[in-house]
Amino acid sequence: MIYTSDSIEATVEMFSALPTIGRKTAQRLTFFLLRQPDEVVHKFAKTLIDLKNNVKYCSICFNFTESDPCPICASTKRDETILCVVEEPNDVFAIEKTNEFNGKYHILHGALNPLDGIGPEEIKIRELIQRLDGTVKEIILALNPNVEGEVTTQYIAKMVRPLGISVTRIARGVPIGTDLEFADDATISRALQGRGTV
Amino acid sequence: MIYTSDSIEATVEMFSALPTIGRKTAQRLTFFLLRQPDEVVHKFAKTLIDLKNNVKYCSICFNFTESDPCPICASTKRDETILCVVEEPNDVFAIEKTNEFNGKYHILHGALNPLDGIGPEEIKIRELIQRLDGTVKEIILALNPNVEGEVTTQYIAKMVRPLGISVTRIARGVPIGTDLEFADDATISRALQGRGTV
Repeated sequence: MIYTSDSIEATVEMFSALPTIGRKTAQRLTFFLLRQPDEVVHKFAKTLIDLKNNVKYCSICFNFTESDPCPICASTKRDETILCVVEEPNDVFAIEKTNEFNGKYHILHGALNPLDGIGPEEIKIRELIQRLDGTVKEIILALNPNVEGEVTTQYIAKMVRPLGISVTRIARGVPIGTDLEFADDATISRALQGRGTV
Repeated sequence: MIYTSDSIEATVEMFSALPTIGRKTAQRLTFFLLRQPDEVVHKFAKTLIDLKNNVKYCSICFNFTESDPCPICASTKRDETILCVVEEPNDVFAIEKTNEFNGKYHILHGALNPLDGIGPEEIKIRELIQRLDGTVKEIILALNPNVEGEVTTQYIAKMVRPLGISVTRIARGVPIGTDLEFADDATISRALQGRGTV
């Protein structure tokens, strides 16, 4: 594509490299920023630098944090006997939004995927086991409902159960607010298997 | 939403402020950047600073450019007797991609919109008239096919015709590659009115 400026080309390329952003959106974002005052764009750049400088991993739960341990691990108001295990930091925010969980977290940073060479050593499973020093009574596995999540769930359950810790997983079923007819077969199967009394 | 870091919150807010990016995508982009090496994010920030520092308006056509006049205005290989008038710099790139046009451009930076207080002084119409010093023989109006584009087209046509310059507009009709049944009424009406011999 013929741009009249290398800087525009470079910015479009850069935005295109981000997930979910195609070339047309990248171009739109670039022209949007060109029309903004200098301060806005400089603040944008500074925010990104700050992000990388300030954010690190919590040494306990491996969530992103600015202080170590992270606010959740440091909190005395949260139940440290229940640990919710998730794949990615965004999953923590998704669960926190619901205000349903008051325990602590452990972020695996991935799921087991032997085909892609992701074994137990590549994700934070060893670190999870090391945290189980007697305080934790229940582990809730909240992994993604796909093959990798399933394999990881079974693997962790097998390792943790012998320690006398209760291992649960979040329910799989028909999502709230949808029509049953739009749910796929696998979801409906799971929902039937996991039926409960009314 | 409860993030464990102000920097993450700030970055999500910043991405959310961009057009076409909602909060969920903003969060995804933020976590994507957090997983990138420092160099990638620093380069991202630098690219944005360079964009604002290097890119200015061409003093002739008002396109974005790093050199003034811009490469298109400076080119001696392009036909300076034909001027294509567009609303925004992105329109130039859309037209350049087709390799159909070898004249020069004029960017209005908007269209007339009396309801929003956008009059002829708010866009580059005066600058367009000042360019018509006898070299330009034809003006192609390539404005957006909506009310504002139509008003601006009529306004410019009325000002330019008395100067003995030919004023044309790009054809409106059924877009290539679509099914006729999916085209809206207004487009089909225009296509019928603008019919040509086969």
